[in-house]
This record gives sequence, structure tokens and C-alpha cells, in this order.
Amino acid sequence: MADKFQRVCVIGVGLIGGSIAIKMRRLGLAEEIVGVGRRVGNLKDALKIGAITEYTQQVSKGIAGADLVILAVPVRAMPGLIESAAGYFQPGAILTDVGSVKAGLIKTIEPLLDPGVDFIPAHPIAGREKSGAKYSDPEIFQGKWTVITPAKSSSKKGIGRIKKLWLALGAKVELMDPRTHDRILASVSHLPHLVAYGLVGSLLAMDRKTPLLRLSAGGFRDFTRIAESSPEMWTDIFLENRKEILGALSEYEGELGKIKKWIQNGDSEKLL
Amino acid sequence: MADKFQRVCVIGVGLIGGSIAIKMRRLGLAEEIVGVGRRVGNLKDALKIGAITEYTQQVSKGIAGADLVILAVPVRAMPGLIESAAGYFQPGAILTDVGSVKAGLIKTIEPLLDPGVDFIPAHPIAGREKSGAKYSDPEIFQGKWTVITPAKSSSKKGIGRIKKLWLALGAKVELMDPRTHDRILASVSHLPHLVAYGLVGSLLAMDRKTPLLRLSAGGFRDFTRIAESSPEMWTDIFLENRKEILGALSEYEGELGKIKKWIQNGDSEKLL
Repeated sequence: MADKFQRVCVIGVGLIGGSIAIKMRRLGLAEEIVGVGRRVGNLKDALKIGAITEYTQQVSKGIAGADLVILAVPVRAMPGLIESAAGYFQPGAILTDVGSVKAGLIKTIEPLLDPGVDFIPAHPIAGREKSGAKYSDPEIFQGKWTVITPAKSSSKKGIGRIKKLWLALGAKVELMDPRTHDRILASVSHLPHLVAYGLVGSLLAMDRKTPLLRLSAGGFRDFTRIAESSPEMWTDIFLENRKEILGALSEYEGELGKIKKWIQNGDSEKLL
Repeated sequence: MADKFQRVCVIGVGLIGGSIAIKMRRLGLAEEIVGVGRRVGNLKDALKIGAITEYTQQVSKGIAGADLVILAVPVRAMPGLIESAAGYFQPGAILTDVGSVKAGLIKTIEPLLDPGVDFIPAHPIAGREKSGAKYSDPEIFQGKWTVITPAKSSSKKGIGRIKKLWLALGAKVELMDPRTHDRILASVSHLPHLVAYGLVGSLLAMDRKTPLLRLSAGGFRDFTRIAESSPEMWTDIFLENRKEILGALSEYEGELGKIKKWIQNGDSEKLL
């Protein structure tokens, strides 16, 4: 059974932050949940659906007295927020996050943390076509993977508590070192999105020369759907996980080059 | 209103051939439909669902007396079939096909035709996840494009009759020269499939080094679905439409190269 927290602070009450909060509340795993964000309308939505019990726009006020702080903003916004929070963490508080790129983030954040803060990085791999607290869904993590990527400073006890929390939220949990996580996600998630953006981009360019998209068949429509995800989030991810993505992209270019050669040579056996 | 045909011969009673036949029968557009194929089990399926009224394994017998012959086999099998049919066409018969690559096919087939055969090449752009007569669906062409790509020898009257036939089958019809058709399909259909095969191939290769596919997220699953289409059909298409596909692939590689450079340079503005 997961431990109960007294006061949880969720920084960034979007689809993921809101879904964690509402499920924790329903499970009785948090006495109070304070939401921190910039847009008051969104925070009011979160309050109305019962995801949070109060809100503030000030990070320092939000984390004061919290025994669990959950960072659920885009990866590149995380270091700035942690800097502005320095000096306000409750001693012994657990800090966790939901960022989809881990190694670089951990390296940046660890030196900024107040002493006594137990940082347990994590990444729930869950769909995110929509954004905003009002789309919060307590079942969004059900059966999905959450990867916990411990930092050097993460305590065993803290890792255990965050693991139990994610299991309670319905996720399957795996522990992995941050670099392995980033390499795997570069392949199974970041590269497919990059490939889809590339394809849609080149088709739009060709369409300007010869109108062709009206004849588009099933294959292409799947790509446009993939490429419709938030451009801000994906720009962040492409840059944060640059090294691993470029590695996966090289593998892919090699594979594409092979297929190209088989087509050029008319090698039907290899193509098959 | 579409003209009625006396005796229609469908060579290759798969999903597409069977769907054309069953819809023509229901609309009363064909007095008799003879199915030609290699597998008797499949031809019996077609008879049972009422797509055809008789069948034979001999091309010469099938086309004898037919005023409409529909070639619905894979593109690379078409020239051989037409060769074996030489001398058996009824004078004045219309020959049409459903191949997804046109220019090279027309060039190969035209010189092989009996004098007096009116060849009207066409391409219905319809889904084909399943194959076999038993999956025939009279509504499969509803609202989908069929492109008619006249050959030099195609008569105006023949084009008009095939156009009316496809409109009756529920399709939207467009006339286009064969090369333009091949260039457009290379971009909107053939390239996306090639890209999906390349991605799935490179991920399987990476998975052999580090197991990663179990963490695969939505993006990747869309690709595997695209890459699951019939490898035989796609090998055919990649080789038949080689030139146009390699052209579209170059455009795509250029786009991918741009994105790669933006990531390498950390250019978030251009990525956005």
C-alpha cells in the first residue's frame, strides 16, 4: 500500500499533473494538494474537478510545508522553477517530476536543490494529445509504464515511496538509469515523431509544387496525426535529448539508405 | 447512369476485384461475371457471396466473349497475364485495371494488346489491409478517389464508360496523366510506407542491442500498423514506381537533414 502524504504540491497542473492529483485525492493518498501555475483559469478548473484543494501562483508558497513536490511542467522550464524554489523546500521533502528526458535534467537540477531534498526523477509514459487540467483523467496511467530513473542523491526510501505511489496510480513501474531511459525513448518515441514531422514537412513542400494531398491515402493520414502533437513540447524534447536522438536518427538513416539501394538495384528479394 | 455490360471477366478475384464484382452485380451492371484465378477455394468463396456467376482457372476461357475485362492482380503479374491472353479478346472489349502504379505498366501492356481492345487504366485508392474474395465489400469505394490515367490508345467513349462505372461504384473520379499519378502516389502513399518500413526495421535492429520495444509508446505503434501491410504488394510497388519514389525519398531526406541540423545547432526557433 502506498504511503499517505500530508501536503502535496503539484507544479504545473496540466493533463499529467492534474491526473496524478485527482487520482491521489480519490485514493486518499494526499491530505491537501496545492496546485501551482501561471494561469488562474486552469487552476480554477483543477479546483472545480477536485484535483487540488487550493492553489497559488507563487512557487515558494506552494512548496512551503509540502512533503511531496511534483514537477509537471515542460522539461526546459524545470531548472528555472527549481532555482526560484531554492530555500523554500521543507527539509526531508521528496521532489519528483514527470519529464520525458532525464539525464541532462538530473545533472542540471541536482546542484540547485536545497540540502535534505530527496529527488526521485520519474517519467510516466502516457498519452498527451490534449492539455489542460480540465482533461485530467484518473485512469490515464492504468497499465502504462512509469520509468523511475534514480539520481545519485536519490534515497532508497524515497525511491520505494515513489514506486509505491505509481503502482497505486495504476502504472507498471521500472527502474532504469537515466541514460538508458533517454536512449530507449529516443528510439521508440522521439525518433518516430521526428520522422513523422519530416514526412509531413516534405509532403507539404511537394504539395506546393503539385497539389497532391487531396489524394492522400491511409498511410499519410496516420503521419499527420502523429505530427499534430504539441510543437512546443517536441522542440523541447528534441533539444533536451539531442545526443540520443541524433544517434537513433543515424541508425534510421542507415536503414533508409539500405532500402534506397535495394530499390535502385531492383533487389526484390532483399526488399521482401 | 452507368452502362450495363453483358459479360464481365475479373482476373484476380481478391478484395478489390471481388468488391467491384459484387457491387456491379447488386447494381445490375453485369449480366454475367466470370472470375479468373489460380486458387479454386478463393473462386468458390467469390461464387458463394454472389460476386461472380462462374469461374475458370484459364485466362483465355475467362476473357472469351467478355465485353469488359478487369485486371485486379498485383501490378507485376499483369504483363504476363496479358501476354497469355493475346488472341482471345473479343473485338471492341474494354480492358481496365486497378494497379497502383501506371506509367511503366501502360508502356509494357499497350504493345501486347490485341487490335481493337480499348485499354482504360485506372487506380481505385482504397484500403487493403485484408486480402481474398471473402472480404469483398460492395461499399469499399464509397467516397474514395479512383484515378483514371488514359493510355495513348484509350478511346473517349471507353474513358467515359469506365468513369461512369466508377461513379456508380461510389467513387469520386479524377482523370490524370499516368506520370502525374505516379509522382503523386509516390509522395502520399509509397513514401509513407517506405518510411514506416525503415523505422520499424531500424528499431528492430536497435532492439537486438538494447531491449526497448516493450516501452514503445503511441507513435511507434502507428508505424508498426502501417508497416504490417502485405510485403509482396509493397515490394512490387517500390520497384514499379522506382523513379518517382526515389525522387520523393530525396525530398524527404532533405527535410530530415534540415531537422537534423536544427537539432545539432540547438535551433529551437526553426524546429518550432
